[in-house]
Amino acid sequence: MGRATSVAIADGVMTLTLARPDKLNAYNPEMQAEMIAAFDRADADDDVRAVIVTGEGRAFCAGADLSGGAATFDYGGDSEWRSEAVPRNADGGVDFSSPSVRDGGGTLALRIFRAKKPVIGAINGVAVGVGVTMTLPMDVRLASETARFGFVFARRGIVPEAASSWFLPRIVGIANALDLCFSGRIIGAQEAQGLGLVRSVHAPDDLLPAAREVARSYVEATAPVSIAMTRAMLWRMLGAAHPMEAHRLDSRAIWTRGASGDAREGVESFLEKRDAAFPDRVSRDLPHFSPWMDDPDWS
Amino acid sequence: MGRATSVAIADGVMTLTLARPDKLNAYNPEMQAEMIAAFDRADADDDVRAVIVTGEGRAFCAGADLSGGAATFDYGGDSEWRSEAVPRNADGGVDFSSPSVRDGGGTLALRIFRAKKPVIGAINGVAVGVGVTMTLPMDVRLASETARFGFVFARRGIVPEAASSWFLPRIVGIANALDLCFSGRIIGAQEAQGLGLVRSVHAPDDLLPAAREVARSYVEATAPVSIAMTRAMLWRMLGAAHPMEAHRLDSRAIWTRGASGDAREGVESFLEKRDAAFPDRVSRDLPHFSPWMDDPDWS
Amino acid sequence: MGRATSVAIADGVMTLTLARPDKLNAYNPEMQAEMIAAFDRADADDDVRAVIVTGEGRAFCAGADLSGGAATFDYGGDSEWRSEAVPRNADGGVDFSSPSVRDGGGTLALRIFRAKKPVIGAINGVAVGVGVTMTLPMDVRLASETARFGFVFARRGIVPEAASSWFLPRIVGIANALDLCFSGRIIGAQEAQGLGLVRSVHAPDDLLPAAREVARSYVEATAPVSIAMTRAMLWRMLGAAHPMEAHRLDSRAIWTRGASGDAREGVESFLEKRDAAFPDRVSRDLPHFSPWMDDPDWS
Repeated sequence: MGRATSVAIADGVMTLTLARPDKLNAYNPEMQAEMIAAFDRADADDDVRAVIVTGEGRAFCAGADLSGGAATFDYGGDSEWRSEAVPRNADGGVDFSSPSVRDGGGTLALRIFRAKKPVIGAINGVAVGVGVTMTLPMDVRLASETARFGFVFARRGIVPEAASSWFLPRIVGIANALDLCFSGRIIGAQEAQGLGLVRSVHAPDDLLPAAREVARSYVEATAPVSIAMTRAMLWRMLGAAHPMEAHRLDSRAIWTRGASGDAREGVESFLEKRDAAFPDRVSRDLPHFSPWMDDPDWS
Repeated sequence: MGRATSVAIADGVMTLTLARPDKLNAYNPEMQAEMIAAFDRADADDDVRAVIVTGEGRAFCAGADLSGGAATFDYGGDSEWRSEAVPRNADGGVDFSSPSVRDGGGTLALRIFRAKKPVIGAINGVAVGVGVTMTLPMDVRLASETARFGFVFARRGIVPEAASSWFLPRIVGIANALDLCFSGRIIGAQEAQGLGLVRSVHAPDDLLPAAREVARSYVEATAPVSIAMTRAMLWRMLGAAHPMEAHRLDSRAIWTRGASGDAREGVESFLEKRDAAFPDRVSRDLPHFSPWMDDPDWS
Repeated sequence: MGRATSVAIADGVMTLTLARPDKLNAYNPEMQAEMIAAFDRADADDDVRAVIVTGEGRAFCAGADLSGGAATFDYGGDSEWRSEAVPRNADGGVDFSSPSVRDGGGTLALRIFRAKKPVIGAINGVAVGVGVTMTLPMDVRLASETARFGFVFARRGIVPEAASSWFLPRIVGIANALDLCFSGRIIGAQEAQGLGLVRSVHAPDDLLPAAREVARSYVEATAPVSIAMTRAMLWRMLGAAHPMEAHRLDSRAIWTRGASGDAREGVESFLEKRDAAFPDRVSRDLPHFSPWMDDPDWS
């Protein structure tokens, strides 16, 4: 248990709960570090087959913690996010090649992007700013009827972050993405569903059971290594220039998987009309194909 | 006032009107030059916060002016678009690396693509050929009930232009884009809305008021520099290969904006529950990050 | 007529029928070779203006033929797909740069991707595994009420193939693509239509007539070379990083086409309010612009 989140594992599912309810689960450096650690743990633990992210209390995440006041986003100044000296070029300007200028929300978003287990957002209340952009690299978003969403950056004098300029248009289309970010308006769960931002809307008490049901549908009859590779392939090919890239990657993947014990078991169990018992484990058997599955350098 | 368009600025919004009503606002070299000049003016004028593009009379734009007859599209021959000698390679073939062979509609489309203010299409009537493809790099399209749309290129023996092969599938999906361009059929406003080509459909007299309302919703509570950067980020990341590209760009953007007077005012006004008065201006304070915000060379 | 497919040409349309009805049209090496040969023939024959792909009997294609049992996907082992020695690196590992490790479904998918005629899927029954992924590079999919779709790869211990990690998210969106592949569930025709996977759903007897009607709408009033170029442009620009790429390609295309006899006829026939008689032929007059219309190397 951390100070800003809590983690529970049951029935093969990790539930990661944002847990600063008195602050409407506002995002701060501790929450970020604990969330990244939770995804590291989920990837390493073969008993975790899927991750659900939700919030404690009435909010999902109200965005950046603004208790620092006007300097909240002044990362080179008094922001609580600044723990090191500002990296400088020879001419005194900020050295933007330094990892210490990386946007915090984006660091988390890219960590979720490369998760090896399906990630399900269970958005129980207000999700604003980084509170909503952090959900975009999740595989599916479910919402409570009480959820609210806002890409409010231009109203605060800043810009969309957490790599949301890449994710958001790919989820709701470029016209809706521009409209949400230009207006900064707050939308309800029904409108979010209409835009494709969330898949389904639930009564508050039904939200977590529905998220668990989605998780179950992803893991009960599938091979864990196949799921991890499928996740890597679909997300990474979403930006690829030509289907030949996918053909290069999936030819390697299908060859390697096709020779696995999982594939033998998958075919045999199907022919024998019985449940499959897949032998391979993500921690041990997940192949890695370069450059497609590499994480790009920051610099 | 030009010969092919008219421009009016009121309440922070430039209204750019295609104004060859007796020719159904057919596109010609004068219209193209005047439209590009209007976008240059809008970008330079801090009093312009958004641009509305509409048409005078019963058409929005009926496409290329065909009064030149069969040679209309023969840009190396008798087309009115040809004002210079055809650029030739050493072997006598057309030199396609020359800027003088650039498609005119695409020159306009790329100018709209890099606009610094939101661009709203108010499509009041028929929009065919370049009349519809010029609207694709606009951020949102509203239509009159009397609007009609047609990607008629294959029926004229030519091909989709104005970079519409890039824009159209990203707006309506690849299957609808292919269907519209293969069939060349004319669709009405309701079908266009169903495809996502236009956001909303209005009675003719309600179209411009609705467009102005959209513009108002984008500018009344937001920082102009944030809007310009948001527009640049979302459109440019729409083609990026990996979210790391967005993370590189928005880390720089969020750092720079976070230290701005706009961000201080944005947070303070929110905490004080009052309207924000953002100090930064696009003409003076818009940062530029290479290579993400550079315009690619033609060659 | 092949052993695994049949081909018929009538009224300008090639109908390519998967014809192993007693095996639910399961995909095998013969079917793949015959399908590729049919697309080669369609591209070369100016009398073929569009291609319809359908299945004989109650299935469209039930996926890979599993009669080889557990070794079905073991391409380096006993699979019927292996006809050559496994290519090896100096260190004994599989040489993934060799064309002989290419995924079979992807070889077909990329062949359909570069087809010069519109391709219409008429999905008459179950389409599972490669039976559905082979339809993704088709331009439009129509379904019978009896059609069923399943991306079942993770249930068999393998991964999505046929470059579907590139195609599927571009057709149904990333969230739906992940959901279909994570769950591996079977969906009906109505749900497939709701996801955008198929355009329309028909009574079984109405499916082929509807597909023929779509084909007719694409070819009756359009120039064949324009259609071939439009298809190449839209599919290839779907992955391009920036609209400048489209502007480079379509400037060349519009210049070349604009000077063609087709463009003269297209404008003249329009002005004269008569049907066009386009003179150009795909086999003779289709231009090729590098690098945009090149096929990438496998290696």
